[in-house]
Amino acid sequence: MAAEIIYGKKIAEKIHEDVSKEIKQLYNKYKIRPNITSVIIGDNKESNLYLKLRDKACEKVGIYSSHVKLPADISEKKVIDKILELNKDDAVHGILVQMPLPEHISASRIFEVLDPRKDVEGFTPENMGRLLIDDEFIVPCTPLAVLKIIEHEKIDLKGKDVTIVNHSTVVGKPLSALFLNRNASVSIIHVFTKDLKSYTNNADILVSGAGVAGLIKKEDIKHGAFVIDVGIVQTDDGIIGDVDKTVKDVAGKITPVPGGVGPVTVACSLENMLKTFKNCIK
Amino acid sequence: MAAEIIYGKKIAEKIHEDVSKEIKQLYNKYKIRPNITSVIIGDNKESNLYLKLRDKACEKVGIYSSHVKLPADISEKKVIDKILELNKDDAVHGILVQMPLPEHISASRIFEVLDPRKDVEGFTPENMGRLLIDDEFIVPCTPLAVLKIIEHEKIDLKGKDVTIVNHSTVVGKPLSALFLNRNASVSIIHVFTKDLKSYTNNADILVSGAGVAGLIKKEDIKHGAFVIDVGIVQTDDGIIGDVDKTVKDVAGKITPVPGGVGPVTVACSLENMLKTFKNCIK
Repeated sequence: MAAEIIYGKKIAEKIHEDVSKEIKQLYNKYKIRPNITSVIIGDNKESNLYLKLRDKACEKVGIYSSHVKLPADISEKKVIDKILELNKDDAVHGILVQMPLPEHISASRIFEVLDPRKDVEGFTPENMGRLLIDDEFIVPCTPLAVLKIIEHEKIDLKGKDVTIVNHSTVVGKPLSALFLNRNASVSIIHVFTKDLKSYTNNADILVSGAGVAGLIKKEDIKHGAFVIDVGIVQTDDGIIGDVDKTVKDVAGKITPVPGGVGPVTVACSLENMLKTFKNCIK
Repeated sequence: MAAEIIYGKKIAEKIHEDVSKEIKQLYNKYKIRPNITSVIIGDNKESNLYLKLRDKACEKVGIYSSHVKLPADISEKKVIDKILELNKDDAVHGILVQMPLPEHISASRIFEVLDPRKDVEGFTPENMGRLLIDDEFIVPCTPLAVLKIIEHEKIDLKGKDVTIVNHSTVVGKPLSALFLNRNASVSIIHVFTKDLKSYTNNADILVSGAGVAGLIKKEDIKHGAFVIDVGIVQTDDGIIGDVDKTVKDVAGKITPVPGGVGPVTVACSLENMLKTFKNCIK
């Protein structure tokens, strides 16, 4: 029997609706709209495309998306000063720092100074730490999107065997904390793992975000598993994920790429913007 | 062939020596000794015993260990005010909050206000977050002790299969981050895990901190595995760990309880005190 395909669109739309509704309510009460500022260093084609999509998504739910553009050769000190200025600015309710940064600027230095209450992406040490100690506040968008999809499918994580193929700071490590906080058993694997299959073939839930097309094959997974594809691979035929087509013959549920985790991640970003806005006005 | 027993004493002594030496050097330069303050709320027999041991260990390396005793019925607000006062006090170079706290006081609230630079135990959100994002600053003592033991045995963690039996905020979660930062494949399991053996029987390194005597048996582990026992179980015959006696017939290396991770954890606590001291004087 073929796996049930879990599309992200419906889940994302529900989040959009909820965010939009709450922003209207807050506007009626405070007469302010959220103003989220993206800090963009240098000129990057992909970043520009991504910004356009973000601006459009923000507009739909009533968020004002402003941009601060800085030259590619700006010093780290000046970027930090700009962040400190935005931290203090009462008219700014959330800050996003567009990745990737130029090589001479350290992301950890930038996130160290960013006000955790305005940290839309949940990348500051404080927000990451609160996640690790089960005091979740603002959670990075991709891990949050994976959790929302699992919750939408009404799956209780307690005691589930979960494998994550990704150990990055933006996906695998925060996602593992989300799962552990809900008492799942969690394995985190990656490019240095000796035997992928020994970790994936027993997983009730498999989240793959390696960025390697066709990495996960049907013989790697357990019959009936929930396979969540976080992989993004650019090909001539468009974007595809980590999960091979054959997997749907064995999996119980599967998220497609595109149209799976992606739209929910965008929606979670809007939800985080609403959160930072509420942190600022309350 | 019986496993090699890895005693903590020698590893701890080396750390003690290094800490003691650096404290002397800093004293010669700045004419100040580290002053570490323990905040103790209420009166707890075990805590008192633990404090005595800590004071003794501090004395040996030239650290002054001071105590702030607060009544068990003190309000959370007053504890927070005390922490804020200690944060500002230039004569205090490190702060420890003695666990367990009375029920009406939230640990996460306390650690949220504690200055990360004075956070001897590495429990503040900022220090936990820096650990998660591979920007390690002050790391909780038990995970750090496990890492020191592995490093002492000259084991390269990259690609190793590691299983941790514990998903707490003080052991399992920070330890998993330490291992992932060094590119090990990591599984974290606990009381809600369906099948312990399926996670332990392939581990190159198994760290068990469940606090369940005899939990890990020889049939659960891989031949030649490094078994690190973080379990503490009080019995009439003294303290024992999670690992059954039979395991030493199969394991390659094993740490005993008592005399394994314990003394290294105490030494790591002193090393963290030195770190907070350096944060304050530099």
